[in-house]
Amino acid sequence: MKKLINNPENVVREELEGIAAAHSDRLRVSLDPYYVMRSDAPVNGKVAIVSGGGSGHEPMHGGFVGPGMLDAACPGEVFTSPTPDQILAATKAVSGGSGVLHIVKNYTGDILNFEMAADLAKEEGIEVEAVVTNDDVAVQDSLYTAGRRGVGVTVLAEKICGAAAEAGRNLSQVAELCRRVNSEGRTMGMALTSCTVPAAGKPTFELGDDEMEIGIGIHGEPGRQRRKVAPADEIVDLMATAITDDLPFRSGDRVLAFVNGMGGTPLIELYIVYRALARFLGGRGISIQRNLIGSYITSLEMAGCSITLLRLDDEMLGYWDAPVNTPGLRWGA
Amino acid sequence: MKKLINNPENVVREELEGIAAAHSDRLRVSLDPYYVMRSDAPVNGKVAIVSGGGSGHEPMHGGFVGPGMLDAACPGEVFTSPTPDQILAATKAVSGGSGVLHIVKNYTGDILNFEMAADLAKEEGIEVEAVVTNDDVAVQDSLYTAGRRGVGVTVLAEKICGAAAEAGRNLSQVAELCRRVNSEGRTMGMALTSCTVPAAGKPTFELGDDEMEIGIGIHGEPGRQRRKVAPADEIVDLMATAITDDLPFRSGDRVLAFVNGMGGTPLIELYIVYRALARFLGGRGISIQRNLIGSYITSLEMAGCSITLLRLDDEMLGYWDAPVNTPGLRWGA
Repeated sequence: MKKLINNPENVVREELEGIAAAHSDRLRVSLDPYYVMRSDAPVNGKVAIVSGGGSGHEPMHGGFVGPGMLDAACPGEVFTSPTPDQILAATKAVSGGSGVLHIVKNYTGDILNFEMAADLAKEEGIEVEAVVTNDDVAVQDSLYTAGRRGVGVTVLAEKICGAAAEAGRNLSQVAELCRRVNSEGRTMGMALTSCTVPAAGKPTFELGDDEMEIGIGIHGEPGRQRRKVAPADEIVDLMATAITDDLPFRSGDRVLAFVNGMGGTPLIELYIVYRALARFLGGRGISIQRNLIGSYITSLEMAGCSITLLRLDDEMLGYWDAPVNTPGLRWGA
Repeated sequence: MKKLINNPENVVREELEGIAAAHSDRLRVSLDPYYVMRSDAPVNGKVAIVSGGGSGHEPMHGGFVGPGMLDAACPGEVFTSPTPDQILAATKAVSGGSGVLHIVKNYTGDILNFEMAADLAKEEGIEVEAVVTNDDVAVQDSLYTAGRRGVGVTVLAEKICGAAAEAGRNLSQVAELCRRVNSEGRTMGMALTSCTVPAAGKPTFELGDDEMEIGIGIHGEPGRQRRKVAPADEIVDLMATAITDDLPFRSGDRVLAFVNGMGGTPLIELYIVYRALARFLGGRGISIQRNLIGSYITSLEMAGCSITLLRLDDEMLGYWDAPVNTPGLRWGA
């Protein structure tokens, strides 16, 4: 295992100390328990949004904290759910009196711990709604998951709902929008290489020199098939077919196309993937209105990519374009 | 070699087609010869800034084209200098009548070809100044280079000078600022893994399972020493000592600290590096005023990082904070 780390046991703590050192102008970091929050939180009268999950998916979620996106993020250890006390502490810290939305990726541990934290927060008089993302079309149930896994659409939901909360929407409106973004979004991922959890010290899974895994999860969970490496255009065809057939996306649909790197994928390759995706969608009459290309929901140093398509309506489009000011996504602010 | 590509010969062309498909709202891409330009160029009366170099360093330089940064970028094939005709065509396309600044990283081929293009542009009545960046403290001469290599400071120079040009500074002022940024900036890189040029099909160099290369160049050129992998804090200490001793940076200096991923490095590791760097600089009384953390000047899928320190003055600081709207760097716009 070669990584730019110190003691494998301290990876998340030291990452958080790095985030604190880098972004103290706009973020506050709690180390006991772990969470990252906007330094201006709680924002009175605004719906607060809290997300979280295992670490190793950076910039998700800590990098998405800031005006126009999340109020707080709770990072667990690498590929490990955050604990209820983290989530409760973050929820209380950012609650501005208008309710808190929990955006939760569909993994069994995450769901349980967010639910427990929500119950405890409600006992303290904080209104909480939770929305579970489950956009991964690759497999039905999987390791760690009953039902589909929550992946790339989570980034888009956090941005869009963050803008809606900033614009003064109330809790039920923001939660409804979040459910709509999830229901209109679909994702599929693939990997060229495995990744190594620092504390484990060896690759999560093995992949031959000429193999790839189609439909991989963000923790290296198995996908639909392991096959010989193929040209990018063929890989995109496979993934985009699975995604568009699932919703289904139809001619005339307007979409946001999100090409995501898994952590070890250079940008030059993501643009080659985007080229193929744009051609694929163009051929089906599906119109890309917005795009996002880069590494936003990762699996440590895994090489590979995921594609997320979100069918846009005018409300989502407006909130997507609204200003955002986080370490991971920033524009118009 | 496992990559998300099609034919290795077409990597740059297909990347440019991907960029064109993704960013046609603000960029125009020429495929013959290759260059990327702001779609609103030429901007009359504004100094135009053109950079370029081999591909494989994305988002540098094509991802830095847009308001507040570059007017055009000329990508060569992977790790190969752009040709004089590319640079000439880009220079002519963006010239707004107030001169053109060429920002050139110090590599022999780049220098020669930018010089030739500048001579040809001058014959056509376009005023051109060139500034060569050479911020890499690792080695004096190297493969491809007489003198020091131009690396991370180039990103900072393009941002700062882009803002100065946008603010109406004239050619000699923007060129003088660019020289100052270069002279006040220092960089050093390291690699945990090699990288593979698609057309070569095999790693540029070999590195043992327990080895790292300190002082690596962005094309995998050898650095100062190959040694056993060490904890991140030790690596940062080594690199930051070399950098700060070189200028030298002194107690009381205000700096921009840039922690850059080489393409295959996950963000979680870059924050651990930043943590160590912040502690190192704090211990020497050097004050970090701004930072940039992410993969901005890369070497394909190489795992590793570089650290750049730029000693800031008020003018640089103001231009750093000015709005920028490019695919790779965006804020306040």
